[in-house]
Amino acid sequence: MNETVRVVFTPSGRRGSFPVGTAVLDAARALGVDIDSVCGGRAICGRCQVAQPAGEFSKFQISATATSLTPAEEGEARCAARGKLAEGNRLSCQARLLGDAVIDVPPESQVHRQIVRKRVEMRAIENDPVTRLYYVEVREPDMHDPSGDLRRLFEALEREWGLVELEADIAVIRSLQTTLRTGKWAVTAAVRNSRELIALWPGFEDRLYGIAVDVGSTTISLQLCELLNGKVLAAEGAMNPQIRFGEDLMSRVSYVMMHPEGAAEMTAVVRRAIRDLATRAAEAAGVESDHIVELVIVGNPIMHHLVLGIDPQELGGAPFALAVDNAVTVMAGELDLAFHPGARAYFLPCIAGHVGADCAAAMLSESPHLADALTLMVDVGTNAEIVLGTRERILACSSPTGPAFEGAQISSGQRAAPGAIERVRIDRETLEPRYRVIGDERWSDEAGFAGNATGICGSGIIEVIAELFLSGVITRDGVIDGASAARNPDRVIADGRTFSYRLVTGSREILVTQNDVRAIQLGKAALYAGVKLLMDRLGVTAVERINLAGAFGSYIDPTYAMVLGLIPDCEIPHVSSAGNAAGTGARIALLNNASRTEIEQVVRRVEKIETAVEPRFQEHFVDAIALPHRRDPFPKLRAAIVVPEAVDPDDSTAEGGRRNRRRNRGRD
Amino acid sequence: MNETVRVVFTPSGRRGSFPVGTAVLDAARALGVDIDSVCGGRAICGRCQVAQPAGEFSKFQISATATSLTPAEEGEARCAARGKLAEGNRLSCQARLLGDAVIDVPPESQVHRQIVRKRVEMRAIENDPVTRLYYVEVREPDMHDPSGDLRRLFEALEREWGLVELEADIAVIRSLQTTLRTGKWAVTAAVRNSRELIALWPGFEDRLYGIAVDVGSTTISLQLCELLNGKVLAAEGAMNPQIRFGEDLMSRVSYVMMHPEGAAEMTAVVRRAIRDLATRAAEAAGVESDHIVELVIVGNPIMHHLVLGIDPQELGGAPFALAVDNAVTVMAGELDLAFHPGARAYFLPCIAGHVGADCAAAMLSESPHLADALTLMVDVGTNAEIVLGTRERILACSSPTGPAFEGAQISSGQRAAPGAIERVRIDRETLEPRYRVIGDERWSDEAGFAGNATGICGSGIIEVIAELFLSGVITRDGVIDGASAARNPDRVIADGRTFSYRLVTGSREILVTQNDVRAIQLGKAALYAGVKLLMDRLGVTAVERINLAGAFGSYIDPTYAMVLGLIPDCEIPHVSSAGNAAGTGARIALLNNASRTEIEQVVRRVEKIETAVEPRFQEHFVDAIALPHRRDPFPKLRAAIVVPEAVDPDDSTAEGGRRNRRRNRGRD
Repeated sequence: MNETVRVVFTPSGRRGSFPVGTAVLDAARALGVDIDSVCGGRAICGRCQVAQPAGEFSKFQISATATSLTPAEEGEARCAARGKLAEGNRLSCQARLLGDAVIDVPPESQVHRQIVRKRVEMRAIENDPVTRLYYVEVREPDMHDPSGDLRRLFEALEREWGLVELEADIAVIRSLQTTLRTGKWAVTAAVRNSRELIALWPGFEDRLYGIAVDVGSTTISLQLCELLNGKVLAAEGAMNPQIRFGEDLMSRVSYVMMHPEGAAEMTAVVRRAIRDLATRAAEAAGVESDHIVELVIVGNPIMHHLVLGIDPQELGGAPFALAVDNAVTVMAGELDLAFHPGARAYFLPCIAGHVGADCAAAMLSESPHLADALTLMVDVGTNAEIVLGTRERILACSSPTGPAFEGAQISSGQRAAPGAIERVRIDRETLEPRYRVIGDERWSDEAGFAGNATGICGSGIIEVIAELFLSGVITRDGVIDGASAARNPDRVIADGRTFSYRLVTGSREILVTQNDVRAIQLGKAALYAGVKLLMDRLGVTAVERINLAGAFGSYIDPTYAMVLGLIPDCEIPHVSSAGNAAGTGARIALLNNASRTEIEQVVRRVEKIETAVEPRFQEHFVDAIALPHRRDPFPKLRAAIVVPEAVDPDDSTAEGGRRNRRRNRGRD
Repeated sequence: MNETVRVVFTPSGRRGSFPVGTAVLDAARALGVDIDSVCGGRAICGRCQVAQPAGEFSKFQISATATSLTPAEEGEARCAARGKLAEGNRLSCQARLLGDAVIDVPPESQVHRQIVRKRVEMRAIENDPVTRLYYVEVREPDMHDPSGDLRRLFEALEREWGLVELEADIAVIRSLQTTLRTGKWAVTAAVRNSRELIALWPGFEDRLYGIAVDVGSTTISLQLCELLNGKVLAAEGAMNPQIRFGEDLMSRVSYVMMHPEGAAEMTAVVRRAIRDLATRAAEAAGVESDHIVELVIVGNPIMHHLVLGIDPQELGGAPFALAVDNAVTVMAGELDLAFHPGARAYFLPCIAGHVGADCAAAMLSESPHLADALTLMVDVGTNAEIVLGTRERILACSSPTGPAFEGAQISSGQRAAPGAIERVRIDRETLEPRYRVIGDERWSDEAGFAGNATGICGSGIIEVIAELFLSGVITRDGVIDGASAARNPDRVIADGRTFSYRLVTGSREILVTQNDVRAIQLGKAALYAGVKLLMDRLGVTAVERINLAGAFGSYIDPTYAMVLGLIPDCEIPHVSSAGNAAGTGARIALLNNASRTEIEQVVRRVEKIETAVEPRFQEHFVDAIALPHRRDPFPKLRAAIVVPEAVDPDDSTAEGGRRNRRRNRGRD
C-alpha cells in the first residue's frame, strides 16, 4: 500500500499527494482550494461538505472507490441529523484520505462563491461580506494564570482563525461573561473587517443577515440577504412615507426650510419605514431580524442626508454642497436601525450635489468604469443622473428633467400602478391606438381586455408621443398637427387653441395634450443636453452602449426613448435596462467587501460636471427640444426603423426641412 | 547689511541662520524648536508667543536689539487686546527676523511642556494629550468642482496640519454644514489620535478639557484638566453613592446577586456621581462642561466593571474572571457621560481579578516597572494591591486584608473624617497617650485642644497599636498584656476575659480592645503574606523601596507600619507615600497619550499571582501575625528605632526568646 495518496479537487482542478489519513479539509487548504468553515473543523457547521464520487477518472488517472475516504463517523451523522449535511456528501473536516480520490467542492461549500445575478451579462461578484462568523472554544478562566474573558476569547480567535488586533464593541463586552458561560465556553463570534468583534452568540450559530436598502424619493426597496452565502431571502418595497411632506425632492427641502423640525420628522419617518420593511422581510423569510448585522443604504443626496439625520437644506440651492460625499459607516443604532446592537450601516459615497449614493451603487452594478466600450448610464427621475465613460475615464452629471417622466405634469399622468397605460401602439394610417394597462396582460384590442385604464404612466407617455411622432401626428417640433385631424377626427381633436390626441374614448377619456408633449420635450431635452455635455467633455460624438437604470429605465422601450431623443443614437441591441441598478449595487456592497473600496475609489476619480454652470447646457437643451433632435441625425436608429426625417431647419436646401417648415407654417 | 541673520532659541539652545524676513515660527520649525500653535500662524491663538530680549549675549556672540524683529502689527495688537499675548511678548508667527536675535520660548508656548507634578522625585511627564485642536480655513463649495463639505474640511486639515486618513463622528457630520457656515468657513477641529474628528466649533476655539476619574469603593475623585497645557483646573471628590447598596465591594456584589436590577442601579448611581462631580468641577473652574472631550476612568475591577455597565458577579467568586482586562475606549455617551457628544472614555487595563485599573494607574504614576531599585508598591484597602519589581521584572497580587485598615471591624473605628483620631503617641513609662484628631491641628495635650474625638481611623489604629507594642503593653503575639495594668490601671483595663487600652477617657470613652488588635493583626498579616509571596517568586529577601499608595497609604506613618509589620523591613527614608497615585496615574493617561500604550504593555508583562491558590500564602500569613513578624528580623527598622526584640520563639537559646516566652506565659 502506498503511504501517500493522490487527490484532485474539482472544479478548481487543484491536485496533490498527501499522507494516508490526511483530512480532506487539510489537503484542500494545503492546495489553496476554497472550502468554507464556520466551526473550524468540528463537524458542526456542515459548510465544508464535499462529494467524493467513486469511479474511474481517466482524465486525472485516478481510480476512486467508496473506500477512498474513511467511513462517516458520529460527527457527520449528527450533522446529517440536523439537516446540515446533504445525503451522500461528506464533511471534509472529518473524512480522511485512504486512497486516491476526486473531491468535488459544491458552490455552497466555497467561501468565495459567486453571487447569483439575474442578468447574465453582468460581471461576476464574489460573496465576501464584511462580517463573517467564527466558532471558537475559549479557554476557561484559570486562577493560576489570570486573564480576562475577552483576552481569552481573542486568543481563541487568533489561534483558530488568525484574527489579530481585534476590538470588541462595548455591548459585546457587557454580555460577554453570560454568553461564554451559557455556551459552556463555546461561542460564535461575528467579526467585521477581520477586526471588530460586533456580536457574540453562545454555542454554534450560522444565522447572519444583512439588508441592502435603496431609498428613493418615491419608493423604498429593501433586500434581505444571508451573508454566509449571498442569497436574497426576501425583497420588500414600500412608498416613501416622506411623500406626505412633499411629492418631490425640492418640495421636501422646502418643507424643511419652513418647519424647524421638518428634517427630523422626515428622518424619523424614513427610518421607521426602513425598519418596518426589514421586519416584514425577516418575517417573510422566516428569519430573526436581530441577526441582521450589516446594512447598506443608498439614495439620492437628499435621501442619503435625511436617513443619516443631516439637514438637507444646503442641497436645496446653489452651490448644492453635500455635507459628506465620502462613504460613511455608522452604528446602525445611530439611525435607530440596530436590529442587532452591533449592526453597522454603510452608506455608499455620493458623487455630487445631485448625483447620489444611488448613482454610485448603480455604477457598482453596471460598471461603466470597467467598460471597454464607451458606456452611457442614465438613471431617470426628477433629476436624471448621467454617467459616461470607460475604464479609462468616467464623467457624471445630473440634469433637471422634472417630474414629467414620472407621470407628473402630464394631464392624465399617474404613477406606474395598476390602471396605468404603459404600452401604446398607433396605426400609422388610421391613427387608431391599442394599448396595455398595468395589471392586464392583454392589449386593448384583444378579447377579454378589461378596459380599466385610469391614466398614463411614464413609459406609456413616452410610447404614445413616440408613436404619434412616428405616425406624423406630432411634428419634429413637438406640435400636435391639427392637419392630422383630417386623418381621424375622433382621435385628433381641437382642444382650445391647440390639439389633443384622444388615446382612450368613453366616459373615462384619456387625452394626450399639447402641454403633455411640451412637458416631455422639456424633460427629454434636459436629459439629452446633460448627456451631450458629458460627450463634449469627453470629445466624443457617439456612445457605444446605453444602460437605462431605475424604475423608469426598466419599463421604457429603448427604441421609443431614442425616437423621442431622450438618449443619443446607439445600436438598439446595445441599449439595455438595468432594472433597480441602485438596489443591486447596494446588494453588491453588502455582499462583497472589496466592492466598497472599489466604488469609493471610482467615485473619487469621477469627473463631476455641474450642468447649472456649464454655458453650453442651454444651447444643447434648445437643440434637444426637437424630436428626436434638431441637429443630431440618429443614423443607427434610422437604420433600424423608419423615423420622420430630421433635418436642420436652418438648412433650407433640404427637402425635409422645407416640408417641415411648410407644415409648421400651416399650423401656426 | 547681511542677507542672513543668526538666531538662537532658548532654553533649547538650537541655533541657525536664516534670510532676513523669516518668520520666527518658521525658523523655530526649521530648527525643530518646540513651539505650539492652534491657529496655524494666523495671529489668533497666541500660543506661539515668545520673548525677544535685547542685549549682548556673549555666550552666543549675539548682539540683539529692539529692532531685531519686525515691529508688532495689527494681528498682534488684536491678540493682545483679547488677553492672549503677554506684555512684551511677540507672536512668533507674526514677528520676522531683521537682525541677530535670541528668542526665548516660555514653557507655556511649548507643545510638549511638562506636566507639573507635586512630588519632585517623580519622572517627568510631557503634556501630549490624545486630542488636540486644529484651526483651519476651509475652501468654500464650488459648483465647478463639486465636493462635500467634509472632504474640503479634511483637505484643509491635511494641507495645514498634515492630518491624513481622518474619520469623522456622525455627530460632527450632522452639524458640519451649520458649523462651517456659522464660522464663515473658519473652524476649529478637535482631532483624536490624529485620526478621529470628534468635535468641530465655528471660528477659533481653544477650550478643550478632559477629566481623570478614580472610582474607589468609598470615594470618587475627579480632576478637571485643560488639555492644551495639562493644567489641573479643579479637583472634586465625593462619597461613592453605591455605599447605600453595601459598604464594601463584596456586599455590593452580593446585592447584585440578590437583585436582578442591582448592577444596573449601581451603574446608574456611580455614573450620575461622576457626572455631578464633573459639573461641579467645571463650575468651580468656570469652564463649560460641554468642552470636555476626553475622560480617563480607573477603579478596582468591580468599580471598573460597574462604570462600564458590566455585571460584576463573576468577580464575586473564584476564579474571579474579569470580563475584560484590556484597556477599553468607549464613547462617553455609552456611559451617559457625553459632556461633549464626541467625548471618549478611556479605561486603563485591569491587571487581574482583584488588581484593577486603579493599580495600573498607580503603577503609571509611581513607575515601579521603570525602577532600578527593587520597589514594592502597596495600595491598602479592603483588598491590598501589591506590586513588586524593577524594570526587569514585575509582579502583582492582591491580598484580602479586610476592612480593618479602613476603621471597620474596630470597636471605635470610623472613617478618616473630622473627629477621628489619626495620630497617637504613648508614654513608654506612664502609658499616658496623647493624640491628634482630624480637624484639629493640636495634640490632645496642647492648650486649646477641642477634645471632640469620635473614633479612630485607620492611621490612628495603626499608631495606637504600634505605640502600645513599643510600650510593651501589647506583646509580639498581639496580646494586650494584663500585667501592664499595673503600670497604669486607668489605661489598661480588664474587659471581660481580655484587656483593653483606654485611649480616651470620659463620657465618650474610646477603647482599643483585644479584638481590635486581632483585626489589625489579621489584616496586616494578609498584606505581609502577599508581599512575601511576591518576594519568594522573585527570589529576594528584602526590598529597596516601598511606595504606599491610596488614601490610607498617604496618612499612615511608614515607621509605625513597619513596627507592626504591615510592610517588610526597609530603610525608613526609602518608604514614601504616593498619595492618590491612582488618580495621578489617571491624569497622566489623560494628558500623555504615550503613557496609555506604556501601561497597556506593562500590564501585559506583569506576572499575576493569585494568593488564593498559592500554597505558601497560609504559611506566610501565620508567620506574619506576630509583631512585627515571627521570623523576619527587620534589621533596618531596628537600626532606626527601638523595637521589642523579635526572636523566633522556637529558638530557645536566645535570651529575648526566653524572656518573651516568659512574658507570654505570664499572661496566658
